[in-house]
Amino acid sequence: MGASAIREILKVVSRPGMVSLAGGIPSPQAFPMELMAELTASVLERHGETAFQYGTTEGYMPLREALVGYLHTLGIESTAEKINITSGSQGTLDGIAKILISPGDVIAVEAPTYLGALQSFNPYEPTYAQIETDADGVIPESMEEVIRKSRPKMVYLVPTFQNPTGRTIPLERRKQIAQIAIRTNTLVIEDDPYGQLRYEGEFISPIYPFAPDHVIYCGTMSKVFSPGLRVGFNLAPALLAEWMVKAKQGVDLHTSSFSQALAAEFLNGGHLARHIPKIIDLYKPRLNALVQAMEESLPDTYTWIKPDGGMFVWAEGPEDLDAVALYAVATQHYNVAYVPGTYFYAKPGSGKNTMRLNFTMADEATLKSAVGKLGEAIRTT
Amino acid sequence: MGASAIREILKVVSRPGMVSLAGGIPSPQAFPMELMAELTASVLERHGETAFQYGTTEGYMPLREALVGYLHTLGIESTAEKINITSGSQGTLDGIAKILISPGDVIAVEAPTYLGALQSFNPYEPTYAQIETDADGVIPESMEEVIRKSRPKMVYLVPTFQNPTGRTIPLERRKQIAQIAIRTNTLVIEDDPYGQLRYEGEFISPIYPFAPDHVIYCGTMSKVFSPGLRVGFNLAPALLAEWMVKAKQGVDLHTSSFSQALAAEFLNGGHLARHIPKIIDLYKPRLNALVQAMEESLPDTYTWIKPDGGMFVWAEGPEDLDAVALYAVATQHYNVAYVPGTYFYAKPGSGKNTMRLNFTMADEATLKSAVGKLGEAIRTT
Repeated sequence: MGASAIREILKVVSRPGMVSLAGGIPSPQAFPMELMAELTASVLERHGETAFQYGTTEGYMPLREALVGYLHTLGIESTAEKINITSGSQGTLDGIAKILISPGDVIAVEAPTYLGALQSFNPYEPTYAQIETDADGVIPESMEEVIRKSRPKMVYLVPTFQNPTGRTIPLERRKQIAQIAIRTNTLVIEDDPYGQLRYEGEFISPIYPFAPDHVIYCGTMSKVFSPGLRVGFNLAPALLAEWMVKAKQGVDLHTSSFSQALAAEFLNGGHLARHIPKIIDLYKPRLNALVQAMEESLPDTYTWIKPDGGMFVWAEGPEDLDAVALYAVATQHYNVAYVPGTYFYAKPGSGKNTMRLNFTMADEATLKSAVGKLGEAIRTT
Repeated sequence: MGASAIREILKVVSRPGMVSLAGGIPSPQAFPMELMAELTASVLERHGETAFQYGTTEGYMPLREALVGYLHTLGIESTAEKINITSGSQGTLDGIAKILISPGDVIAVEAPTYLGALQSFNPYEPTYAQIETDADGVIPESMEEVIRKSRPKMVYLVPTFQNPTGRTIPLERRKQIAQIAIRTNTLVIEDDPYGQLRYEGEFISPIYPFAPDHVIYCGTMSKVFSPGLRVGFNLAPALLAEWMVKAKQGVDLHTSSFSQALAAEFLNGGHLARHIPKIIDLYKPRLNALVQAMEESLPDTYTWIKPDGGMFVWAEGPEDLDAVALYAVATQHYNVAYVPGTYFYAKPGSGKNTMRLNFTMADEATLKSAVGKLGEAIRTT
């Protein structure tokens, strides 16, 4: 399975004095802590023993029912019975991997792609095919070519505010991707953890409604409520959903009942709609501060596209940049950390001149100072 | 992976009017509900945002530290760093399966054994070798013979108040099992969910202390605190522990932080020692009532050994009994359910004349009435 490169990197990151742009997690300031006493009391009062008892593997019905309304706001029509709860999105990805991947199977992924997904897939020994991307994410023609050439078991995508690039696939391309999935009878995994974190521009429909028989939609409460509760969910074609539930039974029986009840109270209390603007108010100025600092402090040879949402900015240095070597200098001598972009590619050696910068975990002044130090590190190497 | 037989059976069990001896779960009356408001408030006050944030895959340190003291009461000396948290015991079993089982590998199990363990193992396509048991559980000579003949990847045991038989392996046999594990360099999985539920007799040491380099000890908060929180833990040889953590990263990143913080508060508040006697006061009369009703209502051709603890009584009918056929009659015409024992054998067709009766989910009067009906069902077939 191999150790996670990010995991190793984060060991350096926790060194005292380090300012980290390497994070991949939400700010605790984005959690609705002011509601938690009320929500936990509601769980005890309304759900009582049920919140502490074994539950069904499919998930806690009050949460599944609440998610019907949430998905409706995304343009996804569903029923509670079709929504299955998992232990974070990671739980969905593990379930998919467990039921579908045999050693040697091909999975098509974006170049670059989300590392955590590969960690879920890798124990089942797949191989990867990379789909080319541009500023608008996945290039449909490349996806179709990869499908025709390597007949992947599935295509894994993070279409909105992707991790690591922050890029969002526009509506027209989403429809094309759905058409390709249908035409080639290919399964698409649509992982959507960041969709609600939009700071600019208009909502774009998920791919799922355009090809519901060919897409597994993966959602999570981690970025809009609390990651520590480990509550994710998915919508999958019926047969796959059934097998994923059977697989999950052997993995953890079910997701924490208390976590599910708490998420249900959060949704049913109408708190989500009131809370998301607060998250945006926290993160949007941080994104702006990061990008402004990059404009001020990074050499002209560095380029990036400011994302409309999410948690990351992706930067490309000059072609001869070795961002792993720069990382060593930046962390050792300038106390600033990021994630070298090469780690996000399924194909080793790709993207050596790229880096992922996170803006959710530090305030504006810290971001400005961190990017300033990064600029210094770049100029000395 | 196959559907769970118990799962299918439980569909009938939930029919209105059914009295079920088929359950495998704790009574909600055994949860310390009177403490939950205090404990959740403590989590918010003392752990705050940490209880809602991502955590390390190994587990939440305050819980791991609290478990050092708990394990000490079992005669297991450990450090917090050696204890890893999983999403229920099931999470430990899945981790073991994921890192160790290749298709065709042999796993040695008790005959009969815990079905949920097989559900964790089955997706990885092992084969099973059955170890013979008697009234004292696993027969060491049979275990050694199975090891020599089939070189199993591991031996899976529930040594105390086993599910489904309720049997407990005596101390002397435990030492023999440890010696065999060491001598043959075989890994033993010691699953211990029921050890604290002792209604008679003296505490018996787990196998782990006798062969710590050859045993993975699996514990859980499910039977002594709350199963719905999905908090389990394990102690494993260092290399296996390391790989299990890596595997878990891809499965769910980590177990619910809130659940872990709640379990830590329960242990650190000294509640466990006060709460276990309450569970015993609830279950012990139920066990007594069940066994007394069996003596009164079941034919002389039925035999059983009253267990000293746990949640189950195992009954054997006459040799020609088909307990699956009887199940159909009992549920359809007498509204009483149990689990046919044959489902607990790795080797299909074994134990056709056996049944598992649960006593935690019904009060004494209900248990008496249910066994009376079961007796009627038996006499009509």
